[in-house]
Amino acid sequence: MSLYGGVEAGGTKFVCIVAGGPGDIREEVRFPTTTPDETLSRTIKFFSNYMRDNEEKLEAIGVACFGPVDLDKASPTYGFITSTPKPGWANTDVVARIEKALNVPVAFDTDVNGAAVGEGKWGAAQGLSNFIYLTIGTGIGGGAIVDGKPIHGLVHPEMGHIMLAQDVEKDPFEGYCPFHGTCFEGLCSGPALQAHWGKPAQDLDADHPAWQLEAHYIAEALHIFVTVLSPQRIILGGGVMQQAHLFPLIREKVKASLNGYVQSPAILEEIDAYIVPPGLGNRAGVLGALALAQGM
Amino acid sequence: MSLYGGVEAGGTKFVCIVAGGPGDIREEVRFPTTTPDETLSRTIKFFSNYMRDNEEKLEAIGVACFGPVDLDKASPTYGFITSTPKPGWANTDVVARIEKALNVPVAFDTDVNGAAVGEGKWGAAQGLSNFIYLTIGTGIGGGAIVDGKPIHGLVHPEMGHIMLAQDVEKDPFEGYCPFHGTCFEGLCSGPALQAHWGKPAQDLDADHPAWQLEAHYIAEALHIFVTVLSPQRIILGGGVMQQAHLFPLIREKVKASLNGYVQSPAILEEIDAYIVPPGLGNRAGVLGALALAQGM
Repeated sequence: MSLYGGVEAGGTKFVCIVAGGPGDIREEVRFPTTTPDETLSRTIKFFSNYMRDNEEKLEAIGVACFGPVDLDKASPTYGFITSTPKPGWANTDVVARIEKALNVPVAFDTDVNGAAVGEGKWGAAQGLSNFIYLTIGTGIGGGAIVDGKPIHGLVHPEMGHIMLAQDVEKDPFEGYCPFHGTCFEGLCSGPALQAHWGKPAQDLDADHPAWQLEAHYIAEALHIFVTVLSPQRIILGGGVMQQAHLFPLIREKVKASLNGYVQSPAILEEIDAYIVPPGLGNRAGVLGALALAQGM
Repeated sequence: MSLYGGVEAGGTKFVCIVAGGPGDIREEVRFPTTTPDETLSRTIKFFSNYMRDNEEKLEAIGVACFGPVDLDKASPTYGFITSTPKPGWANTDVVARIEKALNVPVAFDTDVNGAAVGEGKWGAAQGLSNFIYLTIGTGIGGGAIVDGKPIHGLVHPEMGHIMLAQDVEKDPFEGYCPFHGTCFEGLCSGPALQAHWGKPAQDLDADHPAWQLEAHYIAEALHIFVTVLSPQRIILGGGVMQQAHLFPLIREKVKASLNGYVQSPAILEEIDAYIVPPGLGNRAGVLGALALAQGM
């Protein structure tokens, strides 16, 4: 059986696995994201030790990476983390460094594109060619699968940075995004909730007015994604979406916002199966990385 | 040389051509969109007469159609106009009717997807795999090309119906969309401008405050499309965009709105070549239909 590597390369922690598939994980390690040198060295060492100790070669390694990243294979900085504000990480070569050290081909995409690929292969979007995976947590990001593949393009989508309509009479919060103030991430991420309401999201009761507003904004964002991308399903993951009571609120508000315009039974009649949690739970990231490797 | 048919099937008029390519148009006809029976009969007659009179067979016919339409080839209503409010046209079979009458294969897509395909083949997006064609006129619609093909999905995009942030203190206009009020189309289409300012868009002077506001909203929409789709170029066509003075306003406002977040020279340094008018002008629709036929 072929073995693959997966790296969930997050801004806070890295998770690395060696696996034959999601049900056949041979080894796993996680460590905090520190400097690029230290973090990538630990990543490389994990895989090289595995291959040496087990006398096995990996077919490929998938890296689902925090960004922004360069996904353009024709670019001299392909496989780099580019302009991140994360100290020390701007202009970090990820792909070539791992490939050279291990002599294993590396598949590379954004963390959310990776998670989306994983959800399509083993999770909540199996059999679908067009869908979205969104994570709403420390930040907000989206991976969109169109015709079976993640969207790349000029750079890659930054779906957390769409602007939303805010009724400043009802909600005067100035937003938390340093670039856009009241964009989706600036209104709805975990840190935005904390800045808005003065305590961490997980300490807000289910009947706190924060959640009605949160569901309202998330529904606005989904209205936009439905009309721009026409996904067959929308998967909502991330720390904030652990608040399971958000799902019915969001579904109801998406229907109200679209107001019957998109004439599809998936939205009009079966919205409970249209807006769903990840099938892979909090394993979407690392299994997404594995899926990227298998898809090379 | 192979000959193809193209049908720009609009809600107001139909344009039909027989052509070998955009520089080799053999015959063209245009007529108003009346009832489905009359309009589709005239369409069929145009092509059957051409084939009979010239003793030539068409390889394929492309139909770029007003919608909503059913693009799902597995659906029993594939090739239909579905839930349009246009009187008489809901649930109209377009593809099978033309195919059966002429015994010629028919390619079918939305009007804006067709125009986008045409712009990619012969217009302002040649050589690009990811871009957007938007028409801002009587209505607003968008065709998005991802990895060389138009997005389909659950239904198809309805990019004119994204919601925009409106500062109701500065602009209390209640919007013109019967479904969503102040969505993109409800704020920026030709009829919305007329409802807002009391006269047709073409009668508003270039220094009328309407245009600053129009450019502001269009830029907001483009901010969303850039962050969701990451297009390599954005083409803006349609009647409202005949106001060429809008282009520099929109470009400046898009840059200001993205605020340096998307680190690409295309946006940061070369935005004049990033947000552009159609290369095919007002022929994008019918030549897009021709491109659909050639792509079968």
